This record gives sequence, structure tokens and C-alpha cells, in this order.
Amino acid sequence: MRVEIVAIGTELLLGQIADTNGQWLGEQLAANGIASHYHQHVGDNHERIVAAFKVAMSRSDAVIICGGLGPTQDDITRAALADLMGVSLVERPELVEVIRAMFTGRGREMPANNLLQAQVPVGATVIAQNRGTAPGLICPVGNHTFYAVPGVPYEMQEMFERAILPDLIAKAQASGERAVIKSRVLRTWGAAESRLAEVLADRFVELEGNDRITLAFLASGIEGIKVRITVRGRDETDANALIAEEEIRIREILVASCGDIIFGTDGETMEDAIAKILLRRGETLAVAESLTGGLIASRLVNVSGASTWFRGGVVSYASEVKFDVLNVPIGPVVSGDAAEAMARGVRELLKSDVAISVTGVAGPEEQDGQPVGTVFVGIASGDSLSHVQLRVPGDRQRVRNYAAIGALNALRQHFGG
Amino acid sequence: MRVEIVAIGTELLLGQIADTNGQWLGEQLAANGIASHYHQHVGDNHERIVAAFKVAMSRSDAVIICGGLGPTQDDITRAALADLMGVSLVERPELVEVIRAMFTGRGREMPANNLLQAQVPVGATVIAQNRGTAPGLICPVGNHTFYAVPGVPYEMQEMFERAILPDLIAKAQASGERAVIKSRVLRTWGAAESRLAEVLADRFVELEGNDRITLAFLASGIEGIKVRITVRGRDETDANALIAEEEIRIREILVASCGDIIFGTDGETMEDAIAKILLRRGETLAVAESLTGGLIASRLVNVSGASTWFRGGVVSYASEVKFDVLNVPIGPVVSGDAAEAMARGVRELLKSDVAISVTGVAGPEEQDGQPVGTVFVGIASGDSLSHVQLRVPGDRQRVRNYAAIGALNALRQHFGG
Repeated sequence: MRVEIVAIGTELLLGQIADTNGQWLGEQLAANGIASHYHQHVGDNHERIVAAFKVAMSRSDAVIICGGLGPTQDDITRAALADLMGVSLVERPELVEVIRAMFTGRGREMPANNLLQAQVPVGATVIAQNRGTAPGLICPVGNHTFYAVPGVPYEMQEMFERAILPDLIAKAQASGERAVIKSRVLRTWGAAESRLAEVLADRFVELEGNDRITLAFLASGIEGIKVRITVRGRDETDANALIAEEEIRIREILVASCGDIIFGTDGETMEDAIAKILLRRGETLAVAESLTGGLIASRLVNVSGASTWFRGGVVSYASEVKFDVLNVPIGPVVSGDAAEAMARGVRELLKSDVAISVTGVAGPEEQDGQPVGTVFVGIASGDSLSHVQLRVPGDRQRVRNYAAIGALNALRQHFGG
Repeated sequence: MRVEIVAIGTELLLGQIADTNGQWLGEQLAANGIASHYHQHVGDNHERIVAAFKVAMSRSDAVIICGGLGPTQDDITRAALADLMGVSLVERPELVEVIRAMFTGRGREMPANNLLQAQVPVGATVIAQNRGTAPGLICPVGNHTFYAVPGVPYEMQEMFERAILPDLIAKAQASGERAVIKSRVLRTWGAAESRLAEVLADRFVELEGNDRITLAFLASGIEGIKVRITVRGRDETDANALIAEEEIRIREILVASCGDIIFGTDGETMEDAIAKILLRRGETLAVAESLTGGLIASRLVNVSGASTWFRGGVVSYASEVKFDVLNVPIGPVVSGDAAEAMARGVRELLKSDVAISVTGVAGPEEQDGQPVGTVFVGIASGDSLSHVQLRVPGDRQRVRNYAAIGALNALRQHFGG
């Protein structure tokens, strides 16, 4: 089975946004062993959308359409699909009620335009909209299936995982072509992609021509480098055994050559790793941030249940806030001493067990004689007060993001993972 | 003249990289008034590449092909083009010399694989390679033109600007169709996309069939809704006049129906709007955040020069931090009174002129009898202490992001934009 992705929106053609949906869908399909040979982008134009659908149908078995399901005049995916199917659009009263209820829940009247989103081609199945007002659609066209999802990534992803992927997997299995594909991602921070490639080069060579185990690197920008293991098993048991064995092997190689760089598996984030440590220790955390301006705290509160271990933080952007509120001695604020004083100060102020702090130079100019990218992380825990110095690359925004995850990683390593 | 972009590479289909080349080229074409109705992605497979070329030829006048010009076995764009043209590939000795000289200049021997890059379809014109080893190609196919450039952005962009864009402009001018295209984006927060569509419906109807002015909505998730005006002028002056007139008209319609919802133009963010207000007033700002956990502060420090007006903030995630550090009276913390006390408290602690605060319920459970999505924004400025209540949709992460931009918008509106 071959799946084509058609992303709809003039803004894609004009380069005003990147097609991150196509990339995300491509990754999901590949991870599930479903072939995708073509992607298309087409603008908000009825004839051209229908023409793109026909091209997709001529070379693929199923088509995932992203975008054009909004409530405005230029959202014409529904009409184009009805045209392709040779049917008319009908308003589904139950969808009108769902959409109206969404507005009512927010104390607002439903604009008349949203009625458009309740229109469905005759013969199509609706994918319930759990996150936005636009329902998705499953449209049979001959022996092809067209799936339409909203272009908003958050809505699209949920619908894909809930309704489309299971359907595609069932279809692929029915046609007897699908093996059991599993993948495991080891998430690393602190080693460059080229270093990981060097360390794993021998294993890559061993796996050449092996169609049961594949390794790949996924650079995830500020979130580090992911090492993905994908296996193709005869069945569930076989796939689980293959992946477990390969994971042990890869972990051993990475730890032996690069040390404590694996912070999580699959969807685990750096802040999840911190949460685990604090829960295990039964301790609370506070944060003092200078150049990161609240980024560390805002990452930590993303963890569900953070209120049991996260007290809060101080963003001491102005130097006087460091001196007055955190009792940092007056002097240079980009130094290991200042970082330690910030950590001690915020721990006292917020009455936490553990505290971390970050001070550094985001740029564009150097500060306190330190070059752009210099970051000091202070850690206060028990009777110990210490600091770690990091050098991070990039412009203001990247320095800041790297400093945030780097500081959390330093805390993780302080407690030994 | 219609230009189609075909990006080649299995890594695009697998989602391992994003198609930033297509985005960049789309932007360049639009800025130069050249129409592009379709983009395609196809993997490193000879038959499928040729099939994609044929599809492109059936619906576009010119095709820009990115990628597949490297020196390895999976770089097959040259062969696919020769196949499409019905000609053979010949090795061009002068290209061999150029490539060999590049290696010699770096003190290295040319690998035999690089000879592949000196192969050119009979009848094609070469685009000299100034930045890498791969030359580009200009291939006439009937009355269509295929341009092939490397997938490395740095090499691709230089070739496009030097050899392809001038050629496309000359062709478009020869056919008498090229106009000056300009666009302006009005950035709004606080009105649903469907509401904007309703308000602008009359103008949309007036503009139907008008090929000089186009309106579009771009939903940007938590960053609000963008209204984009695109004009096609006879020349620079004409385009500027058209866009200025339409911008005034759209602003009037939006303000009359929806109030103060436009916070910026083109690339301006909500925090840029706040920075402008504070610089104009010569005042400093502090922030107290509960559910947003530092998100507001981290947005503010993104503005270049924030240190002149941003003092910092307190993330009072635990209730005791609100009581102890910000002097919030002990009691329910999700209320307008608590928000006001937080704003007053952080203004005193951080010695700022103005302060905003946010407290609310991110979920998953309700708190203090308030449902998920309830947000109170406190504002302390001069002698005034006030609060605004917001209702925001979504899961934890979205509630938090909406609360952050909503709070900044409340501050903007407090000072009248």
C-alpha cells in the first residue's frame, strides 16, 4: 500500500510557512512500515486541488490531505472532495451541534461561517474533532481512500493517530504485506551528530543489507540528537526481541564512548528525566534564570504533576534583581560564583530542597569579559553548592534554548541520571 | 508562466528533513511575481522521478528540480532528466577539470565517484558550480524548461539567484505577464478565524474575480490569526499604492467590528508590541506567573534590547510562593483579587513601574471552583490595580500558551495599543 500526502494552502506555495505536517506524517508512516512515494503541495484553488487529487489517485492507494477544512471562504477541501467523489455536500446536524457546543462552552455565539465545517460529502465518514472545530473526513473513491485532516498540527496529529493510522495498518495487514515494525528512540544530549556517527560507524557497517534492523540519527535541534532503532519483525514477539537486543547493544556502545548522554527513551523529555529524579528523591526544586528568561521554568511545568516537586522560580533579568532579590554579591554577574549565589538565593527565597540557576551571555555582545555562548549553571543541593560551565553555539534564541536544556542536563548528571 | 518545484530525496518522504528549499524557492518566486501552483516531493527512484517530471510538465511551464545531483549511487536526477529528454548522458571534460581542481585546491585526490557529476544530458546547458562540486542544469523539453539544482541550500540559492531567476523573469516578461507582487500581513489576536471571515465577507465578495488584490487568512495557532493582503501591481508604485489603500480599508473594517485586535504588522510579535509601548512610556515591566510558568518572561526576553525595559519575574507555581514571596493574602489563588495582589507584589519586589500577573487553571482538573481554561490577568500601573478575566481553550499546554499571549494582549489593550 502506497500513501500520498497532499498539503493544501497557498501559504505553502508562497513559502510563508514550511510544510511541517508532511514531514511529521512522513516520519509516522515510515515508522509504521507504510510506503509513501510522493508528496504534493497545492494552493487554495478548486480546479487545481481536484487535479492534484487525481494525480495522487493515479499513483497511490491512499491519500492524506492536510488543510483547507477551516471555516472561511478559502477552505475548499470539502467541496473539492465532493467534486472528486461526484457527490454533493450535506450539512450534518449532529456536527452543527458539536461545533455550536464548542463556542457555547467558551461563552460565545457560533459564527454562521462555522456551519461550513458541518458540511460532509455524501458517503464520507466523519473523524470526530476532539481538539478544534473542524471534523476530519474519510472518503472512499473507487478502491482508493482519501483522508482529510485540518492543517493545524495539533488537530491533525491527534486525528492521524486516533483514526487514520489504525485504518492504514488494518488495510496493510488485510493485504498481507505488513510486517510488525517497531522503533525505539534513544534521546541523547551533549554529543554532536558526527561524533555519534563515528562511534556507531562499525555497527552501521554490520547492518548494511540487513532489512530487519535499521539505525538512523534524527537531529532534533535544541532537543539533542535522537538515535532511532527500527526493526521489522515477523510478529510482535520477534519484533520485541529484536529491538530489546539492539537497544542494549547501542546503549553499551554510546555509554562506553560518550558517557552519560542518554537522557530518555522515545517521547521522554529532559524535564521528564528531572521529574523522575526529584520524585525518587522526594525533593522540591526552584530555579533562578537570567539569560534563559523563564524558559527552564516553563519547560518544567509542562510535566504533568509538576506541582508536587516544582516550587517556582525567579527570572532575574536585570542585575539589580540578582543583587536585591537573590542576594547575589554586587559584581560581575556572568561567573560561576554568581551562578552559585543565584542558586542559593532562590533556594532560600522559595524554600525548596534543590535549586538550579543559569547566568550567561546570549549576545549579541559579550558581557563581563565573557564571549557569547558562555553559560554558568549553579546547583544547590543539601550542603553542596557547585557550578558547571557550558559553551553553547548559535544566535540569541538558540543560545538561550541550549542553555535551558543544558542546565537541566547538568542537574540530571549531578544526580547521576 | 507557472513554475513547479520538484524536490528529490527519500529523506524528504521519510520526514528526516523538512523541505526548506521548496519554502525558500516559493518565497522567491512569489516575491518576483512568478506563479507557482504545485510542489512535489519524490524519493530517489528513477521511474518515480521521471513520472513526477511528466506530471509537472502536464501542468506547469517550467520546473525547478532540487536535489539528486550529488556523487553517490542514489543521485539520479541527471539520468532521469536524460530519460525524460530522450537523450543520453555525456561526460563533459571541462566539468571534470573544474571538479578535479576543487579537490586539488583542498590538497585531495578527486574520488572516481565525482565523475558522475560531470555527466550532462545532450542538449542541456550547464549552470556553473561556484559553491560545490555539482553543476546545475537547464534542460529544454518541448516548450518546457527544467532547471536542476543541488539540494544543498547554500549551493541551490546561489544558482537560483544567478542563473534561474533572471531566466524566469526574462521568459515572463517576454510573455508580457510579469507584475510586481507585494503582501502585507495584519496580525490579530482575540477574534476567531470564522469571526474575521464573517466581518470581511463583503470585501471578499467584492474582490471575487479581482486579480489585483487577494485576501487570505492564516491561522497561526497560539499566535493569533493573520490577515494577508496580496497585491499585483503594474509596477512598484502601483503595487505600493494598492497595498496602502487596501490596508487602510481592512484596518477600518476590523476595528469597527472587532475593536482593538490588530497587534502588529508582518513580522511583529505580541512582545514587540509590548516593547514599543514600554519604550514609548519610558517604563519598566515585571511579571508574576503561575500557570504560565515563565512563558511570558521567556517571550519578553526574545525582544532585542529587552534589558532596557524588562526587570524580570517571579514564577509562583506553588501557592506558598504566592503568599510568602508576593504577599498574596492567604486564600483562593485563582481569582481576580489574587491576580491583582500578585501584580502588586512582583512590582514591589522587583521595583518595576508596571507589572502583570497571570493565575488560572491549566488543567487537567479544576481549581478553586474555577473550570479549566479560566485565567485572571492582573495589571499594576501607576496608581491603578486592575484585572481582566480570560477564557482560553485547549489542553494544559495550549491553555498555558494562550494565557501567555492573552495576558500580553491585555496589557497592550490596557495602554491602548
